[in-house]
Amino acid sequence: MQTYQPITPAIIEQLQALVSEKNVIIDNDRLEVYSHDEVTDQRYHHMPEVVVLPETAQQIAEIMKLANQELIPVVPRGAGTGLACGAVPIYGGIVISLENMNRILEVNVDNLYMVVEPGVLTDDVQKTAKSHGLFYAGDPCSGDSCFIGGNVATNAGGNKAVKYGTTRHQVYSIEVVTPLGKIVELGGRLNKNTTGYCLEQLMMGSEGTLGIITKITLKLLPLPQHVIDLLAIFPDIESAIGIVGKVTKAGITPSCIEFMDNETIKMVERFLNEKLPNSDTGHYVIIQAEADNEDALDDKAILLDELCNAHGALQILVADPQKIWRARKAFSEAVRHESLVMGKEDIVVPIDKIPEMMQEIAILSKKYQLITRTASHAGDGNIHLNILKGTMPDSQWDEMLAALQHELYAIVYRLGGKLSGEHGIGYKRKQLMQEYTQPAELEMMRAIKLALDPNQILNPGKIFDI
Amino acid sequence: MQTYQPITPAIIEQLQALVSEKNVIIDNDRLEVYSHDEVTDQRYHHMPEVVVLPETAQQIAEIMKLANQELIPVVPRGAGTGLACGAVPIYGGIVISLENMNRILEVNVDNLYMVVEPGVLTDDVQKTAKSHGLFYAGDPCSGDSCFIGGNVATNAGGNKAVKYGTTRHQVYSIEVVTPLGKIVELGGRLNKNTTGYCLEQLMMGSEGTLGIITKITLKLLPLPQHVIDLLAIFPDIESAIGIVGKVTKAGITPSCIEFMDNETIKMVERFLNEKLPNSDTGHYVIIQAEADNEDALDDKAILLDELCNAHGALQILVADPQKIWRARKAFSEAVRHESLVMGKEDIVVPIDKIPEMMQEIAILSKKYQLITRTASHAGDGNIHLNILKGTMPDSQWDEMLAALQHELYAIVYRLGGKLSGEHGIGYKRKQLMQEYTQPAELEMMRAIKLALDPNQILNPGKIFDI
Repeated sequence: MQTYQPITPAIIEQLQALVSEKNVIIDNDRLEVYSHDEVTDQRYHHMPEVVVLPETAQQIAEIMKLANQELIPVVPRGAGTGLACGAVPIYGGIVISLENMNRILEVNVDNLYMVVEPGVLTDDVQKTAKSHGLFYAGDPCSGDSCFIGGNVATNAGGNKAVKYGTTRHQVYSIEVVTPLGKIVELGGRLNKNTTGYCLEQLMMGSEGTLGIITKITLKLLPLPQHVIDLLAIFPDIESAIGIVGKVTKAGITPSCIEFMDNETIKMVERFLNEKLPNSDTGHYVIIQAEADNEDALDDKAILLDELCNAHGALQILVADPQKIWRARKAFSEAVRHESLVMGKEDIVVPIDKIPEMMQEIAILSKKYQLITRTASHAGDGNIHLNILKGTMPDSQWDEMLAALQHELYAIVYRLGGKLSGEHGIGYKRKQLMQEYTQPAELEMMRAIKLALDPNQILNPGKIFDI
Repeated sequence: MQTYQPITPAIIEQLQALVSEKNVIIDNDRLEVYSHDEVTDQRYHHMPEVVVLPETAQQIAEIMKLANQELIPVVPRGAGTGLACGAVPIYGGIVISLENMNRILEVNVDNLYMVVEPGVLTDDVQKTAKSHGLFYAGDPCSGDSCFIGGNVATNAGGNKAVKYGTTRHQVYSIEVVTPLGKIVELGGRLNKNTTGYCLEQLMMGSEGTLGIITKITLKLLPLPQHVIDLLAIFPDIESAIGIVGKVTKAGITPSCIEFMDNETIKMVERFLNEKLPNSDTGHYVIIQAEADNEDALDDKAILLDELCNAHGALQILVADPQKIWRARKAFSEAVRHESLVMGKEDIVVPIDKIPEMMQEIAILSKKYQLITRTASHAGDGNIHLNILKGTMPDSQWDEMLAALQHELYAIVYRLGGKLSGEHGIGYKRKQLMQEYTQPAELEMMRAIKLALDPNQILNPGKIFDI
């Protein structure tokens, strides 16, 4: 475990000289904003000693050199929309906020790519692509508030990963400042590359522990022209989830498959105060599909209809996408309405294991007398499981949640799953990470971290302890 | 630079005890087979001291422990079809051949995956998938002779990468024996995963320098049902290559786009002794496209025809795929027919830079008075450039090739390209790798190598020197 030095007035002065005075925050009220992400539990908050808002990779490189020299921890931060405390400065030190590096540097329509700085809103990436008749396929649910840099650093997932992959599949190359303060371009605007180790893929998803991303070249695609959204309602979880494999195997390659169990539907219904179809017994599957032309889209719709019917669907609705997605998008808010405090798990399992996982969740929920609410990116095997604290006293809640998680992840790993599908490990899931990861794998991760960041300066205490 | 110890009779005995006597080769004639890959230049050959044919990951783990203890280099080897001397034991020691680990362990039709050992022929992976009505999208040109383990270790490319990606995109998870002799499963049968560092992607393409792959879970897809192959002939390189961007932007997502320039067509014509269409001036582009149904396929064919015509095509042929691909597949043999010795470059550049790259190649070819032959996976920007020695004396050839490569790669890197699209660096391109890679990037690769393989036991002297 590294011991860090405090920020001194002399260091503040050096930082001000590097990035100008206006881009250095030391005022406590303004620092508070950078002490947490979307995790509301105060025990996961920690104040930075100083926040720096650099405008260039060169400035970040200089900050890293200074931090190594003075043994000060540095935490890179996007928009702070994380759910795993990945950008919380748990050892204090410097937070580098990328909010000032927010320019779209190039949109190349002929060659289908976009070059952006890390502080661009993901929604703005999507909108800019669309305004050029193109498509950016990364689609995290928090697109209106998260930064593209954070998406890359955490390998954000979202709704469209089932067809287009997660953020790591949307990236040609990244410019990175290394923990030692070197600027390096990893990857290339290339469709094939076997020129040494694939460092860009290692960097993506490393949650700011191996480097700070300062520029990103994103892949763009032609805008899908023919899209259908369909809601299929099933009488039980098994048939609902079973449809995922049938659809994929039929060669449909849906662009989204979302699943909500009946309890969750009932909750959303109460929250929206609006009757939802077949809400008494129905489990919902939303399927979005794209096709080459309208005829092919019709063919897909007919095939989907047949598959869902053959699989016992109670009802299949093709309707206004807005309406279909309304229930799904209300999920998070509806859950918060039931309980402000909750355990937000981000389980991922092989798709065919979802029914078994859902059964096990039901058993655990009963055993621990805790209400659970799930919404799943079913096409990816990614289950957002919210465990509601409700009125349980704090002391009991901590214990219960830990015990439930312990049992839960034993099952997840037995089924071939992992701790996190898209939220990451950060600080919040570190203990679980160390409990469930194979020792040899953890050893490799630690060795790589120490090799690239020998002074343990960059985002220390995240993902695993050294 | 590590100093290694020789293999002693005592070590041979230990190896025999580990894998049984029949699986240890010490006979010189039999060892010779393992002294080279497909690179014919004898200066790149090196004899192993012993070849071991393990049957389990556990055996490989024990060999690695022994090698670390005794400081003996270990080189993992697939089918030996490499083009970069990645599997050549340049420091002698132990070659671990994976040829006995050749079982297909599971084909899961419902969940679209296959579990294989590394010594399975890539063709057998494809055929087995097809026999189950499914599709394995990895498609290196040497599928009839290469092993799937080698494909993964080198991130092999091939014809279909333009649509389906290279081998690293076809893999769910790998079981790996680490340089220190631990067995670890990296990745998972998951469509999303943000649970610590993405070690499986780091491992893939590391050419056996970071671990030995002992089991692979491959993704399968529904078999494409509606496929068209089209040959478009253009009057000049610019319009031929320019069509790639037009096709992609039109949303066609071809499954192959191959390019052959006119000189190459003439060479193939001579070799096949068969008149090829428009061979006097024509540059060939082969486009393969897939669609949801026959109507959509017709739509795509019509759109492709329009795009090619608008781009100045001399002729567009939709014909028997076998016939269309005949000229492309004859390329390598036809080149060998012209000159047994050649420099085989595997350049990759951004697709839109191919015309400029082709012009520069023509200039260099003229300057050095060396005949060059190219065939390109144009949809990937991957140019196979063969520089023919012809009758040039050995001493002059070495010098000329080095000088030409030096100029060539300065251009490649200026255009945003890299040394190798799909053949890898291995031993053959190591000096060029060290010359053209950013120092900070090379430093990161070396740090990772040393972190995971502190004794520099596993496939030393490949990709870069420590």
